[in-house]
Formats: sequence, structure tokens, C-alpha cells
Amino acid sequence: MRAITVTNPGATPTLTWAEAPDPVAGPDEVLIRVAATAVNRADLLQASGNYPPPPGASEILGLECSGVVAAVGDGVTDWTVGDECCALLSGGGYAELVAVPASQVLPVPQGVSLVDAAALPEVACTVWSNLVLTAHLHAGQSVLFHGGGSGIGTMGIQVAKALGATVVVTASHDDTLVVCAELGADLTINYTADDFVQVVQAALGGVDVILDVVGAKYLQRNISALADGGRVIIIGMQGGTTAELNIADLLAHRRGVIGTALRSRPPTGPGSKAEVVQAVREHLWPMIADGKVRPVIDAVLELPDAGDGHRRMNQRHAGKIVLTVNPEGHNRGNQAIRGNQQGASR
Amino acid sequence: MRAITVTNPGATPTLTWAEAPDPVAGPDEVLIRVAATAVNRADLLQASGNYPPPPGASEILGLECSGVVAAVGDGVTDWTVGDECCALLSGGGYAELVAVPASQVLPVPQGVSLVDAAALPEVACTVWSNLVLTAHLHAGQSVLFHGGGSGIGTMGIQVAKALGATVVVTASHDDTLVVCAELGADLTINYTADDFVQVVQAALGGVDVILDVVGAKYLQRNISALADGGRVIIIGMQGGTTAELNIADLLAHRRGVIGTALRSRPPTGPGSKAEVVQAVREHLWPMIADGKVRPVIDAVLELPDAGDGHRRMNQRHAGKIVLTVNPEGHNRGNQAIRGNQQGASR
Repeated sequence: MRAITVTNPGATPTLTWAEAPDPVAGPDEVLIRVAATAVNRADLLQASGNYPPPPGASEILGLECSGVVAAVGDGVTDWTVGDECCALLSGGGYAELVAVPASQVLPVPQGVSLVDAAALPEVACTVWSNLVLTAHLHAGQSVLFHGGGSGIGTMGIQVAKALGATVVVTASHDDTLVVCAELGADLTINYTADDFVQVVQAALGGVDVILDVVGAKYLQRNISALADGGRVIIIGMQGGTTAELNIADLLAHRRGVIGTALRSRPPTGPGSKAEVVQAVREHLWPMIADGKVRPVIDAVLELPDAGDGHRRMNQRHAGKIVLTVNPEGHNRGNQAIRGNQQGASR
Repeated sequence: MRAITVTNPGATPTLTWAEAPDPVAGPDEVLIRVAATAVNRADLLQASGNYPPPPGASEILGLECSGVVAAVGDGVTDWTVGDECCALLSGGGYAELVAVPASQVLPVPQGVSLVDAAALPEVACTVWSNLVLTAHLHAGQSVLFHGGGSGIGTMGIQVAKALGATVVVTASHDDTLVVCAELGADLTINYTADDFVQVVQAALGGVDVILDVVGAKYLQRNISALADGGRVIIIGMQGGTTAELNIADLLAHRRGVIGTALRSRPPTGPGSKAEVVQAVREHLWPMIADGKVRPVIDAVLELPDAGDGHRRMNQRHAGKIVLTVNPEGHNRGNQAIRGNQQGASR
């Protein structure tokens, strides 16, 4: 098969479309012929050499894909060769073939094209695991997404609204905030102009949940933006890894700080990828079928141009950047919200 | 009425039994003629001048009591004059009479005497709100209590076992650890001899929940003693209020730190005292009626000798220190586990 290989990991890595060994479906695994994958921040970190794959995972980039089942390993009963699917991966998505535990494979949701489905597994699993399984967000509560225009933000806004929550987002450009409002955000904050702690406390008396990718730099401000009983869920550390924690503040307001990661979850068992994927299939996929939640796609590029996709990730964008392997073979669905599409296929 | 007054708040406060104005049952409140109250760490902090009562609360010490309903305010339909009860208070328990929202009043559990019931509301509400409502502890998980011989520890061990959890405790005396084991603790650690992080990780691969009263001094060690996906619940800060938080560690292991307090919870609404009391009545009171959970009473003193109770709190003890107002009038139940009882009534 062919796959993207990183020839010089570092500040300016080169992503090359090259031959690589075919993966094989082991016991309880499915081999997928990839239709499309999508760019995640973790891919950029891994290409820079700062985020090694977890033990046992493919060295190839790519944490999600869509495609067609090409083979099934021993013990797999839920999937048959030829089935269309999408999957949450521990790595290996930037390739023509990828092997993945069957418990991490999902059907393509109703009304979504095979290519667009590649934009869903990571954000769907991230949003559901954090908002619902970790933070227990429910109707009548409120949630803040930093980076409302990100893949997580654009998915999170819709899911939180579908759950009946009030949604707040921050971003650095008003254009992005307009997109967020169109997706359902109730309160949008340009953090270059306004202090989000003050805005959130004045408007809502704090929020019940914050989904944060900044980490240390925002820790105290995030805690201060919580309502009594609120939780900061940290899933990224773009602003540093250690910070002073004011425990007295936590006690006085029953606040909490929780860190999570999707990639390091075990394949099966309590807190596993399988558990998250099952919950997504059961609860979030129907929201997509009902039209309450739609994939938000910023651009569709071809996988050999993955380097362009990574550069685009560092520019202003809204939604997911999808990378297709064989775009000509795949019909498009109608449900996706599309941004500035640059793919050769359109 | 008569009540304990603190005549010189500070390092060696004087607790005096003296005349005080009678409280009155306001709307939705119950006036209780107090049979007994019990000592909490917060009472010692308040007497030292370091823990002012929350706005609106009585200036008189005492966060729980048992007794007989003496009057009911407008709107109270669940309680009638003469009913035996116990209650979670925001203050005022060290007195002959106390007024409390009806939503914080509980029946005396089946099989428990009126005096012994004074030992229950604070520890029952603390244990249930933290283990179940906050940490979602369930069968098959594990929990660590620091200070296993405390009121919270002795109640927590029994409730966690009744929930089907594995229980670990720390204490500084082997005698206390024997009491904890008799109550059901599966693993006991003398922290003066062994490192609890090493013991817990070696024996269990970490625990799912830690209930902590130390705060800053233990923060990183508590986090290190967690299993993946675990939570440190901090309810006291005997070891300081600020500490460095390693966010990378939280993310890698999906760990969390949550602070809580019972006294500052609002009377009603989400996260309120009323919500906690209702959950305790529904789920924990039946555990007591079934004999799975019993009050653990270290000593019963008379309320005018409250100063002796406070001094005892700083010595080695196991379970609650109860202070009676009119001991001669109250029959004893059979279910309580008793320690070194010094009360004049026995």
C-alpha cells in the first residue's frame, strides 16, 4: 500500500506519499480500505516529533478514517467485507489500508457520505466522552468551548445544543464566531477583545463545564469561569503542563479539574475506546441521523497533499480538514456543512 | 434557651454553656428541641476564629443534631410537633433549640437511638455526596480514605463496602487500623511506616476514588495513587491550600481533582443540601435499617462539656464524639458501635 511517511520529524516535517507495508487484520480486528482520513492537532504534534504513538500503535499518522471493510480477523462477527464504515484509530489513518479493533469501527451515519464520515470519529468520541461520560452534562446546564471553530468546537456546539445545554464559545476572529452562532452557540466571545471570565460570570454566573485545550495558561481563569459545582475538562496543553492550583477555591465552589485523552484509553474495559465508541453509536449517531448534528468540514484535500492540510490547520479555519484517498469513487451526502473547500474532487 | 458560646475565639477558646436567644422557625423551617449534637472538625476551626459561618447561618457552633420537633414554620407539611428527627445544620447545633430548613431534616433511622442519630447527618451527607453524587463510586471500584478512624472514615468504610467497593484506609496508629478492618476495610496502611502511594499501586494498581482532608501537602501523592480515570475528592485542607498541579499527569491517566464542601452548599436547588439529604434518606438510611451501616461513636459527653469533646477530637479516637443535651430522657438503640464512652449517662 501507500501511506504518508514523515521523513524529517521536527519544526518543518516533510510528509511524503510512499510505499509502506500492508497492515494485516489480527484477531478481533478489521482491515479497512481507507476512503478518507482527517487532520487532528495530534497529527501535527506527532509529525513534529513531540507526540510518539502509544505502545503497539501504528507509526503512521492518522487517528480516524472512513472506508470499506477489506478483511476481517478471527473472531469478528459484526463486520463483513464490503461494509462501509468509519473508525476511531490509535494511528495509521494516513494510508490506503489500516487495521483496527472491531470495537472501534462505526457504521457511516445515515445521511452522511463515506468521505464526510472520516471527519466524525475523533470529534464525536472526544465530545461525547468528555461532555457526557466525564462531565455528565445535561439539559439546563451550560458549557464553554475554547476554540469554537475547531473540529471539536463545531461538533461540541451541536451536541451540547442537542443535549439541551446553553453553549458559550471563544475564538479570535469574529468570522469564526459567526459560524459558531449559526451552529447554535448562544454566547460568543472574541477573546482578543473581551475577558471570557468576566463575560461568562456576568452573563451566566459561570458555566457548568469547560472543554479546554490550553492547559496551564488558562487553569485559574477557567476555574474562575465555572459555576458552583462546575468542571474544567482539559484535553490539550497548548499553554503548558503545570500550574498552581488553588484548592481553597475548588472547595468553596465545589469545582473540579479533570484531564482526559482519547488516544491513551485502553481498547476495551472500563473507560476504553470501545466503551466510548459504543456510547457514540448509541447516542450521537442518532442525533446525526435526525439532522440535529452535522459534520462540519472546512476543506477536503487529497491525502498525498497532507502537508497542505497540516499547514491549513495552523491557519484560521472552521471545522474538519478531510484528506481523501480515492475521491472519485465516493458519492457525497447532503448533510455536511462545508467551508472553503479546496479539494481537487470538487 | 441555653447554648455553647465561644467567649475568646483563638488557639485556646473557652466554650461556655450560657443563655442565648431562642431561635424561631421561619417559613419552611422546623424548630428542633435538641437531644444531642456531635463534634466536627469545622467546629474546632470555627471556635479558633478561622472558619466563619456562611452568610445567614447561626453564629452558634454545631453542624448536626438529633431531637424532637418543637414547632414548624409556615409551609412545612412533612413534620409535626413531637416527631423524632435528626438534621444537617448550617450551624446552631450546640444549643437546646435550633431552627433548620425542613428539607435538611431526616427521620431517625430504624434501629438507632435518638442520641446516636446525632452522629449521623454530617458524615452520612459527606460520604454520600462525595462517594456517590460526586465520584460516582460503584461496585467493583476502589476507594481510599485518609484518616480511616475519623467520623467520615468509619462511616465511609461501611458505605463503600455496602456499595460493593474495595476499601483502603490510612491512619497513624495500628489500633485505629484494627477498628477500620473490623468495619470492613480491605487494606489498611499505617502511613507513619509505609508510603501509601507505593502500597496502593502495588496492591491495586491505584484506587478509583480518594477522599482527602489534607489538601495541598498530599495533592501530587494522591494523584499518583489513583488508577487511570480516578478522582481525588478534597474536602479539607489540613495540609495547605495551594499546590502545583501536573496537568500532563491528569491527561495521561484521565485523572481528576475535585473540591467539595457541605456547609457552603445552597439550601435548595442543584447541588444543594436538600438534594444531598434526600439522596441520603433514599439510599443510605436503608443501609442503616438493614444493619449494613452503623453509627460509630467514640464517646458520648454532655453538651456543657463541649470543650472536652473538642480536646478529644485532637487526640486519638475512632468515630464520632456525641454531645447530649438531656441524656436522661433518651433511650439507647442497639446498633451503634461504641468506643471509649465517657458520657455521664452510661
